[in-house]
Amino acid sequence: MVSSFVSDANFSEGNLSFLGEDVKKASAVLRKTDSATRDMALTSAAEALLEDSGEIIKANKIDVEAAKAAGQTDTVVDRLRLDETRIAKMASAIKDVVALPDPLGQVVSGWVRPNGLRVKRVRVPLGVVGIVYENRPNVTSDAAALCLKSGNAVMLRGSAGAINSNVAIEKSLRVGLEAAGLPLSAITLIKDVKRETVADFVRLDKFIDCLIPRGGPGLIKLIKENATVPYVIDGDGNCHVYVDKDCDLEMAIDIVVNAKTSRPGVCNAMETLLLHKDIAEQFLTMADTPLAGVELRGDDASRSVLSRMLEATEDDYAREFLDLIMAVRVVDDIDMAIEHVNKYSSGHSEAIITNDYKAASKFMAEVDAAAVLVNASTRFIDGGELGLGAEIGISTQKLHARGPMGVAELTSVKFIVEGNGQVRK
Amino acid sequence: MVSSFVSDANFSEGNLSFLGEDVKKASAVLRKTDSATRDMALTSAAEALLEDSGEIIKANKIDVEAAKAAGQTDTVVDRLRLDETRIAKMASAIKDVVALPDPLGQVVSGWVRPNGLRVKRVRVPLGVVGIVYENRPNVTSDAAALCLKSGNAVMLRGSAGAINSNVAIEKSLRVGLEAAGLPLSAITLIKDVKRETVADFVRLDKFIDCLIPRGGPGLIKLIKENATVPYVIDGDGNCHVYVDKDCDLEMAIDIVVNAKTSRPGVCNAMETLLLHKDIAEQFLTMADTPLAGVELRGDDASRSVLSRMLEATEDDYAREFLDLIMAVRVVDDIDMAIEHVNKYSSGHSEAIITNDYKAASKFMAEVDAAAVLVNASTRFIDGGELGLGAEIGISTQKLHARGPMGVAELTSVKFIVEGNGQVRK
Repeated sequence: MVSSFVSDANFSEGNLSFLGEDVKKASAVLRKTDSATRDMALTSAAEALLEDSGEIIKANKIDVEAAKAAGQTDTVVDRLRLDETRIAKMASAIKDVVALPDPLGQVVSGWVRPNGLRVKRVRVPLGVVGIVYENRPNVTSDAAALCLKSGNAVMLRGSAGAINSNVAIEKSLRVGLEAAGLPLSAITLIKDVKRETVADFVRLDKFIDCLIPRGGPGLIKLIKENATVPYVIDGDGNCHVYVDKDCDLEMAIDIVVNAKTSRPGVCNAMETLLLHKDIAEQFLTMADTPLAGVELRGDDASRSVLSRMLEATEDDYAREFLDLIMAVRVVDDIDMAIEHVNKYSSGHSEAIITNDYKAASKFMAEVDAAAVLVNASTRFIDGGELGLGAEIGISTQKLHARGPMGVAELTSVKFIVEGNGQVRK
Repeated sequence: MVSSFVSDANFSEGNLSFLGEDVKKASAVLRKTDSATRDMALTSAAEALLEDSGEIIKANKIDVEAAKAAGQTDTVVDRLRLDETRIAKMASAIKDVVALPDPLGQVVSGWVRPNGLRVKRVRVPLGVVGIVYENRPNVTSDAAALCLKSGNAVMLRGSAGAINSNVAIEKSLRVGLEAAGLPLSAITLIKDVKRETVADFVRLDKFIDCLIPRGGPGLIKLIKENATVPYVIDGDGNCHVYVDKDCDLEMAIDIVVNAKTSRPGVCNAMETLLLHKDIAEQFLTMADTPLAGVELRGDDASRSVLSRMLEATEDDYAREFLDLIMAVRVVDDIDMAIEHVNKYSSGHSEAIITNDYKAASKFMAEVDAAAVLVNASTRFIDGGELGLGAEIGISTQKLHARGPMGVAELTSVKFIVEGNGQVRK
C-alpha cells in the first residue's frame, strides 16, 4: 500500500532520533506557555482544518483508493474515509478540548513541614507524548489537541494506510501552532511508515516521556515486548453485567440491551451476561424479544430456558466479541459472579444490577476493574459521559491512570519545596 | 557465591508462575481486608523480627562469610551485615509504617452527572507489587511493610548474596501474616536466585501489577529491555545547586555543604554546583575551607579562583559521583544555569539559592525534575523528610509517581459509578 506521498522529500526528513530531539525541544517551549497561547493555537488549528478540508479530502482519497485496491473491508475503508461532515466534527472536537479547564499549575496538595519548608505538588506536562494508532485519521487531530492542551508536545505514529490523510491534517494543525508562535515540531507526525519503525519509535525513551498505544492486541504485544518508553495500555473491554436476584428486572433488561446493543463494536460494550439462578429463567424469558438481534451463547442452565441459545465455550467467556454476540452464564450467587468477573475481566468496566445494599457494596469492593457500576450501563465508562471531557484512551492498567484518561492524565506532578535556608540534620 | 541454603528443598518450591498465581490469589484476599487487620499483621511481624533476631543473624552470617570469601568490598559486606541494632531498626521501621494513615478507600474525587449518575474515584491496592533489589536485607522488610500497608501482596526478588538473610526475614514477616489470618503468600520471596530469573520475573505481567526496581543502571537497563510488567524507575540523582547572584552567601554555603557532604552516597546528595559569574569568586573563596574535604572539578572560570580545583570533563557534569567529589561551573545567568540543569539532570532534585523573586519563579517553572527547591538542601527530597512517611523509592520518571513514593503511590484509583437504571442515549 505504498502511496504516492511516501517517496516525497517530506518523508525522508531525518531519522527518528532527529525528530525526537526536535519534539523534545518543542516540549521545553510548551512547558513555559500559558493556556491562553495553547488554546489560541488549538482554535486556529480547528479553523485551519475547516479551511483546508478540500485538501484533506483530496489526500484522504489517495488513502481510501489504496485501501480499496488492497481489498480492505468496508469497515476499514469507512473508518478511513473523511468528508466535510467528519472534518467539521474533528474541528469541533478540538474546540471542545479548548473549552476544558487547563490542568497545568493545579496544586494537587500542599503542606508545611515542622522545619518551615513549604511543600506543594503541582501539575506539570509530561513532556513528550507518543501516540501509536491505527487507521482512523481523526485520532491525529484528537490526540494532538489533548496533548497540546495539557502542555505536551506529541509524536504521532499513525498507520501506513492513512499517511496521506495524516500528513494533510498535521499541516493544518501546524497552522495553529504557527499562529500562536509555537514551534511547529510540537505536533510531529512520523512520516516513515515502515513496519519496523514502530519498534524503533517505542524505544525513544531519550525523547518520549509516555507512550499511549491505540490499537489491537498485536500492537499491545509489540509494545510490551519492545518499548523502553513508559506506556499506558488502552486495552480490551471484556465487560460483564451481573443481574442479581433482588433487582428490578425491567431495569436490568434496559441496561443489558443498552450495554450490548447501543454500540457493540466499542470497548465499553458488554460481552457477558451473568444471571443469578433465582431470576435467570424470568430474565431470559422477558429479554428474549428485546435481545432478538443478539446471538446468545450460554451454559446449560441458560440454554434450558432459551432453546435458540448456542453453547458457550471457555473462549466465549474470555473474549471481546465487539459484535451482536453475547455470552450468558447462570451463577449460584454473587460470590460466583464476582469470581467469574475477576477471572475473565480485562479490567475495564463491570456492572451489577441489584436492589440489595450488601450485594452492591460487595460487588463495588471486590471486583477488580477500572470501573464498577451499580444499576447503570457499562456504556457510560467514557471520558465524555463521566464528565472528564474528551479522552485520549481508556486505561486498563493500574499504574498512572485507570479508566478514561482526560487531560489531567496527560500530566505529571512535580514537588516544589520552598525554604529559607533549611539544611538536613 | 552459592550458599548452603540454595540447594535446600525450600528453594525448589515450584516455578515463578506457580508462585505468581499464589501471590495473585493472596492479593485478592488482601483487597477485602480492613486496615486494622493489615496493621495487626505488621505489628506481629515487627515483634517476630525481634524475637527471631538470633536466627536472622545466624542466617546473615552465612551471607556475610560468603561475601567476604568472594572478596567483596567492605562497603558491600557492611551493607549486608545485620546485628541486633539493625534488626531493631527494621522492626521499628515497620511500626512507623503501621502508624501511617491507610491510603485505601480514600475518595480522591467525586461528582454527580446531569443524568444523576454518581461518580467517584477511590483508592484501591495495585494488587501485586514486584520488588527487585540488591544486597541490603532491610529492603525485604521495608518493602513488604509498605506493600502490605497499602493492601498489596508483594513478590520480592533480592540478590543471591543476601538469600539466607532474606529467607530468615521472610519467615518472621510471615509470622505476622499468620497471626492476622492472612495468606502467607502475601509476602513471597523468590528463592531461586539464578541470574536469569530476574529477566523471567519482570515478565510476569499476568500476576504482577507494578514493578519497583531498586538498583543500579544495570538493573534498570535489564528492566527496560525485558519487562512486560509496568514499572516505576527509582533512578539516579544527578542533583544540582545553582547559586544565583542575588543571594545570602552564608546560606548558600551552608546548603551546598549540607547537600554535598551530609551523606554523599545517596541519590539526593548534590553532584554539581553552578555559580552565577557575579558571585563565583566570592563564593568559592568563602567556601574553600568548609568544602576542604571535597574534591572539586571545575571549568576554567572556577579554577582561576581556586587553584586546588581539578579540570572538569563533560563526563563529570553527566555523572553521579556518590562520593566527596563535586563538579563546579560558572554560568553567565540563570538561563544558562537552567539550560545546564535540564541538559545534565537525571530529573531528581534541583535547587536554586536566591533572594530574587523572578529568578526563583523562573527556576521552579522551567526546571524539569521530580523536585525543585528554593533555598533548601536537596537532601530533603525523601519521603520521611517531606512528611510522606517511609518511602518505597524515589521515582525519576513522570508516569504514575514522580519523586518520593509513599503508600499512596502503591495504590491505584478505581471509578465507582452508581445509578438508578441509567442507559446511554
